[in-house]
Amino acid sequence: MADTTQNECVLGIDVGGTSIKAGLFTTDGKLVDVTKIPTGALVGEEAFSRVTEGLHGLVENCGREDGDVVAVGLDVPGPVDDQGRVGMLPNIQLDPEGLMAALAAKFPDSALAFVNDANAAALGELWQGSGKGFGSFVMVTLGTGVGGGVIVNGRLVSGAFGAGGEIGHITVEPNETLSCGCGRKGCLEQYASAKGLVRMYREQCAHLGLEAAKIEHATDTISVFEAYKAQDPAAVRAVGDMCDKLGLALAQISCVIDPAAYLIGGGVAGAFDLFGESLSTAFRSHCLATSAGAKILPCSLGNKAGMYGVAYAALQQRRVRA
Amino acid sequence: MADTTQNECVLGIDVGGTSIKAGLFTTDGKLVDVTKIPTGALVGEEAFSRVTEGLHGLVENCGREDGDVVAVGLDVPGPVDDQGRVGMLPNIQLDPEGLMAALAAKFPDSALAFVNDANAAALGELWQGSGKGFGSFVMVTLGTGVGGGVIVNGRLVSGAFGAGGEIGHITVEPNETLSCGCGRKGCLEQYASAKGLVRMYREQCAHLGLEAAKIEHATDTISVFEAYKAQDPAAVRAVGDMCDKLGLALAQISCVIDPAAYLIGGGVAGAFDLFGESLSTAFRSHCLATSAGAKILPCSLGNKAGMYGVAYAALQQRRVRA
Repeated sequence: MADTTQNECVLGIDVGGTSIKAGLFTTDGKLVDVTKIPTGALVGEEAFSRVTEGLHGLVENCGREDGDVVAVGLDVPGPVDDQGRVGMLPNIQLDPEGLMAALAAKFPDSALAFVNDANAAALGELWQGSGKGFGSFVMVTLGTGVGGGVIVNGRLVSGAFGAGGEIGHITVEPNETLSCGCGRKGCLEQYASAKGLVRMYREQCAHLGLEAAKIEHATDTISVFEAYKAQDPAAVRAVGDMCDKLGLALAQISCVIDPAAYLIGGGVAGAFDLFGESLSTAFRSHCLATSAGAKILPCSLGNKAGMYGVAYAALQQRRVRA
Repeated sequence: MADTTQNECVLGIDVGGTSIKAGLFTTDGKLVDVTKIPTGALVGEEAFSRVTEGLHGLVENCGREDGDVVAVGLDVPGPVDDQGRVGMLPNIQLDPEGLMAALAAKFPDSALAFVNDANAAALGELWQGSGKGFGSFVMVTLGTGVGGGVIVNGRLVSGAFGAGGEIGHITVEPNETLSCGCGRKGCLEQYASAKGLVRMYREQCAHLGLEAAKIEHATDTISVFEAYKAQDPAAVRAVGDMCDKLGLALAQISCVIDPAAYLIGGGVAGAFDLFGESLSTAFRSHCLATSAGAKILPCSLGNKAGMYGVAYAALQQRRVRA
């Protein structure tokens, strides 16, 4: 008899505002193929059909049948609690229950799971990336904002209210006068996001009376890091401040869960080679001596981490059900 | 045939500098009796014999035999890592391997576990105290210093380097000029420990030009809370500052692991009725809106929490081995 499990596969889906990106994985974590499906707002049967048809196409292209899909994971840009319930999603239009029902109808035998996008990235790195082999680590996503994902005792910490890993909102400057997007003041995100770094660079230019390098847009950290490489004094100070605030925040995390490692990802982490050492130095200057051995490493799955992570989460869900 | 398991019991031991306090528990968590054993420094066979003989006496007094002891847990005032290895203990003289060997010889069939004292208290509250039924909580011990214990997904988080739950060293005032005992500046412990509260009260008296209430010693928070009850303006400010700094620290923890609850214990928590509400208000003013539902409750096992917790940890150890 043929082995009916050899074609078993998992779908990992990044949910965006107007499209989704889906990857098909083997159950042992190899990415077979990826597709992007334009969807429009993820509300109503028409959009859900576009999703399921697009996924069907991916499955077929990979030489599988819909029945081979044993698990489907989705990541969403917002809070998901310990029970998998999706909270408020300010940036996209999505009816999570409706989408879940459409997927359950298309792949009736598969486990389904929603995961917050930053948490998903952490799970991805745990499964097949830089987090492999660490019992505990915190993934730090430096992008437009600052997100995170916490792994403790080999498991994701979503939090009782879904705010586990919201490390962008650790207070690193209680005396800040500017407000963060969350309405509070002095959050890490104000200094270590792409937007924060560009703002601090411009402030340093003004402060030092220097002409700023050409900055294309409010999150153009590439130009800031170019200036940093050229030893532009304002860029040196801005990147130094970013590392100091981020190091301080990581030191706070170590006082709570004392992880074995921090994995740095997101767009800003493209420049990890340039700032990784300053960040490690800043962390060690702020942390308890006990925790100074924590490793600070770049992530390795890039923007596919979330896709890996939701595939892994859905697979875990299936094992719990089995 | 008689049920040979009905007499099974667990020993929970608080390790101090010159004596130990041991409790005998049933395996379902009832405390049968407690004894205190003077030991001197816990180094060398003579001291270890005093320990094992004292424990033998406790077991006999409870109508059990040494063979009924299925697990022995010990809490120590210092770091213990995920593998149960004891780190540096600045305040007591203890040879952990030697003591472990003596206990293993006396109770050869029992599981043995060392646990950090603050972590032990958290486990005790999880087993039989205010933490029962919470999947995640953080225990906050306000005593001479500020300690903590973190429970996530129903398990203790000791940390990769043993610093899990070191919440007394969360930085709440990056611009502080005074140093904490750890050598860093602006740690929670500087404001929310007994010593911190007394210091802040005295500073407020000086600042306001008021005569301080009679303070018996550097950790006499009872007198500060008496003054607070009498609406002494310096005490009102000092307690307000303590709540604000503690609320800020708990808000940081919520951004990392977002626990369902915070349990407040330790000597200062004797006044929880007086400051609990201010603390909840401060926490909610500092935390992300998502986490505002976290409960802030007093602990319920008092200074027996550690004893309960190590008994529970040793029992868990036994289940892992079985």
